[in-house]
Amino acid sequence: LGRIMRPDDANIAGNVHGGTILKMIEEAGAIISTRHCNSQAGEPCVAALARVERTDFLSPMCIGEVANVSAEITYTSRHSVEVQVNVMSENILTGAKKVTNKATLWYVPLSLKNVNKVLEVPPIQYARKEQEDEGKKRYEEQKLDRLETKQRNGDVIFPVINPEPHTVGYSQSSLIHLVGPSDCTLLGFVHGGVTMKLMDEVAGIVAARHCKTNIVTASVDAINFHEKIKKGSVITVSGRMTFTSNKSMEIEVFVDADPFVDESRGRYRAVSAFFTYVSLSKEGKPLPVPQLLTETEDEKRRFEEGKGRYLQTKAKRQAQMQQAAQH
Amino acid sequence: LGRIMRPDDANIAGNVHGGTILKMIEEAGAIISTRHCNSQAGEPCVAALARVERTDFLSPMCIGEVANVSAEITYTSRHSVEVQVNVMSENILTGAKKVTNKATLWYVPLSLKNVNKVLEVPPIQYARKEQEDEGKKRYEEQKLDRLETKQRNGDVIFPVINPEPHTVGYSQSSLIHLVGPSDCTLLGFVHGGVTMKLMDEVAGIVAARHCKTNIVTASVDAINFHEKIKKGSVITVSGRMTFTSNKSMEIEVFVDADPFVDESRGRYRAVSAFFTYVSLSKEGKPLPVPQLLTETEDEKRRFEEGKGRYLQTKAKRQAQMQQAAQH
Amino acid sequence: LGRIMRPDDANIAGNVHGGTILKMIEEAGAIISTRHCNSQAGEPCVAALARVERTDFLSPMCIGEVANVSAEITYTSRHSVEVQVNVMSENILTGAKKVTNKATLWYVPLSLKNVNKVLEVPPIQYARKEQEDEGKKRYEEQKLDRLETKQRNGDVIFPVINPEPHTVGYSQSSLIHLVGPSDCTLLGFVHGGVTMKLMDEVAGIVAARHCKTNIVTASVDAINFHEKIKKGSVITVSGRMTFTSNKSMEIEVFVDADPFVDESRGRYRAVSAFFTYVSLSKEGKPLPVPQLLTETEDEKRRFEEGKGRYLQTKAKRQAQMQQAAQH
Repeated sequence: LGRIMRPDDANIAGNVHGGTILKMIEEAGAIISTRHCNSQAGEPCVAALARVERTDFLSPMCIGEVANVSAEITYTSRHSVEVQVNVMSENILTGAKKVTNKATLWYVPLSLKNVNKVLEVPPIQYARKEQEDEGKKRYEEQKLDRLETKQRNGDVIFPVINPEPHTVGYSQSSLIHLVGPSDCTLLGFVHGGVTMKLMDEVAGIVAARHCKTNIVTASVDAINFHEKIKKGSVITVSGRMTFTSNKSMEIEVFVDADPFVDESRGRYRAVSAFFTYVSLSKEGKPLPVPQLLTETEDEKRRFEEGKGRYLQTKAKRQAQMQQAAQH
Repeated sequence: LGRIMRPDDANIAGNVHGGTILKMIEEAGAIISTRHCNSQAGEPCVAALARVERTDFLSPMCIGEVANVSAEITYTSRHSVEVQVNVMSENILTGAKKVTNKATLWYVPLSLKNVNKVLEVPPIQYARKEQEDEGKKRYEEQKLDRLETKQRNGDVIFPVINPEPHTVGYSQSSLIHLVGPSDCTLLGFVHGGVTMKLMDEVAGIVAARHCKTNIVTASVDAINFHEKIKKGSVITVSGRMTFTSNKSMEIEVFVDADPFVDESRGRYRAVSAFFTYVSLSKEGKPLPVPQLLTETEDEKRRFEEGKGRYLQTKAKRQAQMQQAAQH
Repeated sequence: LGRIMRPDDANIAGNVHGGTILKMIEEAGAIISTRHCNSQAGEPCVAALARVERTDFLSPMCIGEVANVSAEITYTSRHSVEVQVNVMSENILTGAKKVTNKATLWYVPLSLKNVNKVLEVPPIQYARKEQEDEGKKRYEEQKLDRLETKQRNGDVIFPVINPEPHTVGYSQSSLIHLVGPSDCTLLGFVHGGVTMKLMDEVAGIVAARHCKTNIVTASVDAINFHEKIKKGSVITVSGRMTFTSNKSMEIEVFVDADPFVDESRGRYRAVSAFFTYVSLSKEGKPLPVPQLLTETEDEKRRFEEGKGRYLQTKAKRQAQMQQAAQH
């Protein structure tokens, strides 16, 4: 799986949008898991994205490079499929290759005839028993995390009039998008990858408004897709900055869906997630980021929570590096 | 110039978006006027859209139909070109053709070397002297109108928290868009057609939120492009309903540009316009529209102004029909 | 039919992709032949692409130029239509026009009600009897050729681990694409032009990987569309280099379709074709190409076959030039 990165896939500095990469990752995951779930006789189904694990953007990709995406099923539970997707950027002029992403996605097979019916997943064969056990552990962990975020979902972004630079209100942004046919799967629901691309677009604008430089996606926290979004809905994607470290910005993004032609249902929160951005100089070096000015109690609390996530991630990474050094 | 209409060009009822048609119209106008302005030896230039006259959408276009777009230069002043663009929809299965739009656009040639320099336009030949005189009259009229709207441009859309259905705050909407390379002309500024497509997208969402049915663009009032928008800018497109008649809705749309990487300049109003929408039943018949509930003094004033425009247009149309009947 | 070429239509050197041009050619052919086949009362139908004759890319097209596409029906058999499509590039700044392509396409009318039913084509009028006879000869020739390629279709591309530069395995590439609604005709099958664009994308990646320079499409051998591809299918497009001359590369491209939700059918070969690329210097001059290193017996055989095609084309061209010189 490969595709050349085009000008529209990138910002004006030539760096491919994180959202473009997330969309490719999700498409690869959707194909492999739909294929797997239809591999045994039975009701035809389409795999719908339920969750993406935390994803780091390890190195930037540029216009003209080829993105190579490979996907593998690594675990199956009764009703879900875990897919591991790797992305490499390849400069086809020099031959240089770099790993840009390693992502883990969870899919659920929905019946083509009845979209509310979750079908059973054909089990995969494991080379070693430990692989199954580790997969099961990952499955249980993500299940717990999904429940937790579901409870957090009531938050709303309030508009601010005449905000000061570097405050939360100054950079917060939102867009609306009318869900068209090409945004949707065969079931008539929005591809998870389309949603993630819009989320990254909003988060990127928040980050750029805050620091007014060339910014790139550094990582995305785990994203849970609690609710499907139907063709013809209007989706509102809103982002606000929650935390800044010396060289990174954390942006919280909400996706609200309004299936307005369908009167039985009002607007609802479909997805939310945290994106982390860094600011780059013309030479591609990370730049210091202006500190976020928090004003309200809520903003201060969210800043502290963001700091917690930042320190936790930093600690995890250091532990991994030490472990790697020992081996 | 022709193109098959695809699902992505249309809403879920299969009606092609007015914005898609406006974008095709503008591309045809840009080609013919750039070609004309470079037809004599001299500095190379690109024609930039300055204004679109009021445009009616005479009949809906559907997925699978072919849009045939033809353009003709009808007047040249010293520094501007008037282009008449006609759009016909053609059902290639039945052979049925319908006029869907007749639009008049004004372009200004900008030097490729110095984008702030307006070049001279080679004069066209008129078959009859009256054509030149009528063209000059249209030129003077639009010049006046452009000055007037420039003064109206300070208005801002304020957010409303927990609005009631059918109020202005309930349906008002906005989107942000990061200007990419494919949105821009050779000069590195946004194509007028791209801006109009985004404006129609927002206006359509406002209309759909208000009446929760299938809506289509009925007309667009004259649009003036006062300010260019540079590649890499973030544009915010906001819409609010200003007036409803029994069977139509008027939506005011603002486009603000934020060239945030360019520190010398803050956010500015680039374009504003009025779009009129109608609501259609499944059989394509116009439906009654819920009346807009106005709350503030400003909303009431804008409603009355909208009513004025509505009655004026109605009177003009009746006069034209009587005139046509007499001939 | 005309359109301004945008950054996304081109590679990073600014040359418009051959695939973009092939897609425009096919759209023009589909419009004119669908229109013709519905010109008499009878069952409504959509013209489906059956074959494209060998097409040369006579001169490169650049971003900002306008592509003018014109189409004409040149022959009709009982069940097929031959369309001649010409493409000219126009620099609207200088007024310079160049013929970039002359293509011949064959379409077959499929009933809108029953996609497996081929309808009859209304006969066209010929100005001279010889035109009909020459058309009939072309018709018979292409019919034969279609049968031959059908038999060749079993071939598969195997991955190679750690390949050496300039071997076949080193540059071979593949991409997968999930067929969306905007890729499809009214019948719900992929437009031939969409398939050709993907094929050119893969062939271009293979060529760039081999010679690591700016490459452009020089020609495409006759392409036969044996099998339709349904909406919702996954298509895998794979390319491998088969032959290099001093200044050109031949790449074989396969398209396999997997209607994976549709249980009645497995993966199948839908199309295959040969693309020829040349490598260009920064000044647009053809560069020498590294020789392809063949390793296996099959690779050596394919190289010889490619050489045969190359010499045959060269001989034909020389004969045409001599003929032209004599007149």
